[in-house]
Amino acid sequence: MIRTMAVIGTGLIGTSVALAASRQGVLVYLSDRNRSVARTAAALGAGLTRTPPERVDLAVLAVPPSQVGAVLTDAQEHELADVYTDVASVKVGPERIALSRAPDPSRYVGGHPLVGRERSGPLAARAELFRDHPWALTPSPMTSDAAFNQALELVALCGAVPVVAQSQAHDEAVALTSHVPHLLAGLMAARLRDAPAGMARLAGQGLYDVTRSAGGDSRLWADVLQSNAAAVAGVVKRVHADMAMLIAALDQLAEPDGGDRDEGMRTVMELFDRGAAGLAGIPGRRPGAGGGSAVRVKVPDRPGELPRLLGAIADFGVESEDAAVDADEAGALTVGFTVRPGAADRIVASLRVGGWEAVRPNAAGPHFTDMVRKGDGIPPGAVSK
Amino acid sequence: MIRTMAVIGTGLIGTSVALAASRQGVLVYLSDRNRSVARTAAALGAGLTRTPPERVDLAVLAVPPSQVGAVLTDAQEHELADVYTDVASVKVGPERIALSRAPDPSRYVGGHPLVGRERSGPLAARAELFRDHPWALTPSPMTSDAAFNQALELVALCGAVPVVAQSQAHDEAVALTSHVPHLLAGLMAARLRDAPAGMARLAGQGLYDVTRSAGGDSRLWADVLQSNAAAVAGVVKRVHADMAMLIAALDQLAEPDGGDRDEGMRTVMELFDRGAAGLAGIPGRRPGAGGGSAVRVKVPDRPGELPRLLGAIADFGVESEDAAVDADEAGALTVGFTVRPGAADRIVASLRVGGWEAVRPNAAGPHFTDMVRKGDGIPPGAVSK
Repeated sequence: MIRTMAVIGTGLIGTSVALAASRQGVLVYLSDRNRSVARTAAALGAGLTRTPPERVDLAVLAVPPSQVGAVLTDAQEHELADVYTDVASVKVGPERIALSRAPDPSRYVGGHPLVGRERSGPLAARAELFRDHPWALTPSPMTSDAAFNQALELVALCGAVPVVAQSQAHDEAVALTSHVPHLLAGLMAARLRDAPAGMARLAGQGLYDVTRSAGGDSRLWADVLQSNAAAVAGVVKRVHADMAMLIAALDQLAEPDGGDRDEGMRTVMELFDRGAAGLAGIPGRRPGAGGGSAVRVKVPDRPGELPRLLGAIADFGVESEDAAVDADEAGALTVGFTVRPGAADRIVASLRVGGWEAVRPNAAGPHFTDMVRKGDGIPPGAVSK
Repeated sequence: MIRTMAVIGTGLIGTSVALAASRQGVLVYLSDRNRSVARTAAALGAGLTRTPPERVDLAVLAVPPSQVGAVLTDAQEHELADVYTDVASVKVGPERIALSRAPDPSRYVGGHPLVGRERSGPLAARAELFRDHPWALTPSPMTSDAAFNQALELVALCGAVPVVAQSQAHDEAVALTSHVPHLLAGLMAARLRDAPAGMARLAGQGLYDVTRSAGGDSRLWADVLQSNAAAVAGVVKRVHADMAMLIAALDQLAEPDGGDRDEGMRTVMELFDRGAAGLAGIPGRRPGAGGGSAVRVKVPDRPGELPRLLGAIADFGVESEDAAVDADEAGALTVGFTVRPGAADRIVASLRVGGWEAVRPNAAGPHFTDMVRKGDGIPPGAVSK
């Protein structure tokens, strides 16, 4: 049970943890080597800038990866808390120091909340920062069950979803899913210095998306990369090799009338196909991407019916972009979409009550259009009553 | 004056243009080589799937870059419209064909609305898609004023911001600001196939941001890259060279106890610094990034005052992340932020009416913290009444 907590380091993450804990009634003690930063966190309602009068239930070390080991060792030597966790995005290094140098490795469990970090500092903190985001926990073989449960309670208190992993597997995964994406954002942003004056007006959404995280705290990011350099280098080298292939393909495509254009086009398409396959593996990117039950609804041939139907299915959480429309020989439109397995019957029934001709084809697939293309959808006749 | 319009190609962009025009009372005729797609657009209220009975005021060619030239030539041969524009994201190729093969190059002006394209198809279309986004227009030396003005009217009708450029300059700019970001998104997404099972749970916001555009229409994107291959290859080669430097730095950082760690760290920090410099050149990324007037407000030493002040400045469009807090020797907090030049006096007056001790230091700078660090802010004494 967490009743008292010490947060060391009151930047974006530390202050957000402290705000979430304070809101739940936990007594939080804040410290930061920069006094202004700690006082700012306190003034935001994150806790007290006072030394805890007695041992706290949990200490959260919200310092850069390279400092976690030293701060943990120091805190344990002063018996600051019963249990210690951290929020650094690299876990092998801190665990190694916990096991080799810290007074009591059984009381430490590594942690890493996965949230956007393009902002920094306590003013960017929010109690809700972690809500529904993954929060990795990397208990070592020495970590006690009591310590692990205390960390799980912290994650629950912050509204996050715990994901348990070994520190090595964690570091390799975040090299791929977090650190290399950030480096690519930085590499792209660095190129923007080449933009001719005025042409930055032509910046579009894709650029904002790709470069967003490059606005983060560069000292913190450099610390992260240093702490996970080997895993990050491995991924970057593979991206570099893919990019060399892409350059060769672009050179082929740039030839005015060369015979290699088809080969260049194939290479580019293959890259995009691999990208689509990679994206399909990320959870939550698209409703229904993980499979689901198909629903099909006939669109009456009157003005305004398609928008009205899209509004009706939006009530079930289906975005119009995730639906597909098909016209039969006579030009009649049918809308198809995919919903969570188990929800399809209820949705079909609701749509029928609303006057729509809705059916649930037997075949289930991630995309209606695929289903139709393969010819395993219901025959058009089955739709009209 | 645009009273009638033909839209050829009713995907995301064509249908969105048609929806925007229809809402403004323009009579829109839709066509698409895929009948389902055109009928879907019509059912959404974008216009009529009928051949125009007479010449329309404007034809919008919303087809992939490689097809613009042929479609333009064909449409002009049939005298479809008074004026022709397109929405392809590459402009040199279409212009070349307009000048060399189309019956009347004076009636054509190249266009390119810059919007996110991670979705595709008419169901993703919205009349508001272009609102406040840049829309490039690339009149050729042959384009008549009448044609150019018709295109400007289209941009206004869609609520977008026209940006005029030469086709060559446009293509080089979007290689940097749009096409290469998309390729990096694809390269990153392709790497995700390597993610060990289950570890995709550790996907964070940075990954979603960087890979978002990789979910777009890959055939369309391949067409775009093919049509702008030389400019794209130029930028990708520079990113590739930067990445080689970064790999060398990561290898230095991964050495257990090598003497090159400092050099590796310098290279990484330098990359991030260049990225920050590049980002600073993109308009609209951060309020006040383009310079502004500093405002400084004292935070009363009572619980809840800092959040209350942040709420008060939020009413003036200042996000809390863009403010900075400073503590004096006695621990009293002061909040500093930057507002549009000209707005500072009004905001200071309003804050004072609200009971805050607000001042406007003489020195203006993009960031309060920089100002304070350089010592050219107002002395602390000046703040307290």
